[in-house]
Amino acid sequence: MVLTRTFELHTNANYDTHDITEQVAQHVRESGLQNGIVTVFTPSSTSALTTIEYEPGAISDFERLFDEIATPDREYRHNLRWNDGNGHSHIRASLVGPSLTIPFAEKELLLGEWQQIMYIDFDVRPRTRRVIVQILGE
Amino acid sequence: MVLTRTFELHTNANYDTHDITEQVAQHVRESGLQNGIVTVFTPSSTSALTTIEYEPGAISDFERLFDEIATPDREYRHNLRWNDGNGHSHIRASLVGPSLTIPFAEKELLLGEWQQIMYIDFDVRPRTRRVIVQILGE
Amino acid sequence: MVLTRTFELHTNANYDTHDITEQVAQHVRESGLQNGIVTVFTPSSTSALTTIEYEPGAISDFERLFDEIATPDREYRHNLRWNDGNGHSHIRASLVGPSLTIPFAEKELLLGEWQQIMYIDFDVRPRTRRVIVQILGE
Repeated sequence: MVLTRTFELHTNANYDTHDITEQVAQHVRESGLQNGIVTVFTPSSTSALTTIEYEPGAISDFERLFDEIATPDREYRHNLRWNDGNGHSHIRASLVGPSLTIPFAEKELLLGEWQQIMYIDFDVRPRTRRVIVQILGE
Repeated sequence: MVLTRTFELHTNANYDTHDITEQVAQHVRESGLQNGIVTVFTPSSTSALTTIEYEPGAISDFERLFDEIATPDREYRHNLRWNDGNGHSHIRASLVGPSLTIPFAEKELLLGEWQQIMYIDFDVRPRTRRVIVQILGE
Repeated sequence: MVLTRTFELHTNANYDTHDITEQVAQHVRESGLQNGIVTVFTPSSTSALTTIEYEPGAISDFERLFDEIATPDREYRHNLRWNDGNGHSHIRASLVGPSLTIPFAEKELLLGEWQQIMYIDFDVRPRTRRVIVQILGE
């Protein structure tokens, strides 16, 4: 059995992170399914999904990594072509990836105790984003 | 219901990228399934899969990132052992990852408007590659 | 049909890697399922999963990449808050990601000939870890 759900996020610019664990967990609980996988997917080329211990220190440390390996303060060929200033956003998003697959059992996500689902908007302006939550199971 | 499909790619060396969105979408449309997930997988340790806005600027910017954090122009222990010159290819592929899971609904991939599926061959010689497309759904 | 399995790993500190291909393959073979996907998931925020040609050279080259882009030898805000010294472990784990989805057919994982499943413990002390193997298929 397959259920496809979506929810919206209102994001700010420049590494705006969101803990979306509860939204995903709620869709799983309301699905009626007991066991399976949930695929969380961001249909965008400038945002990404991963897990993290969602506390300000780790979130900030992660941002520094991207500022160092993919700084906004240089030329990007994407920007030269499209002039939208988000060349660094694209490569950050491609590096982290748009999808996350998490198993669940007895209606609960099998995440670690200190592990949350993090949505990252790498883009350079506020957006209304759609997150897809697809639940497969029995 | 599960369908396992494969297709071939003829790749060139050194960050040869391919937009494989249409191949994957076609396998989904022909599967007869309405809703589910498609797992795209590269059975190789020197190639990887992600999504990107598939235009030359972003593709080139992404390559520069790998040239900076995993340049071919230095020693790699893999090369010292195997002498095949693709040590950087291996670590790039492991960083990006070999699999991508994308939900589909009403036979259509739920990708963003500017988001394509990118296959990257990081290896140092032309190859014939096999890409696995596995479709689960109902 | 969905099967959720787990196994334990005893890990050492600081980029302790494990080839878990055989454990995952065995769970698939014993599942009774012929075709499907297996999701391997680490319920932790300081460990990660990917694939690699599991030989000492590539494993060591991959470690050097993390030592360069996320060295332990600097300040991390996570450490300033929690004083547990594993700030670099968190961001490395978030970059690689906690999940891996691999198709199987006729009970066999569809991995490449030189491609193994690698568990990486990025944390700074030995741990007993749990790995989740969830098998969906028919």
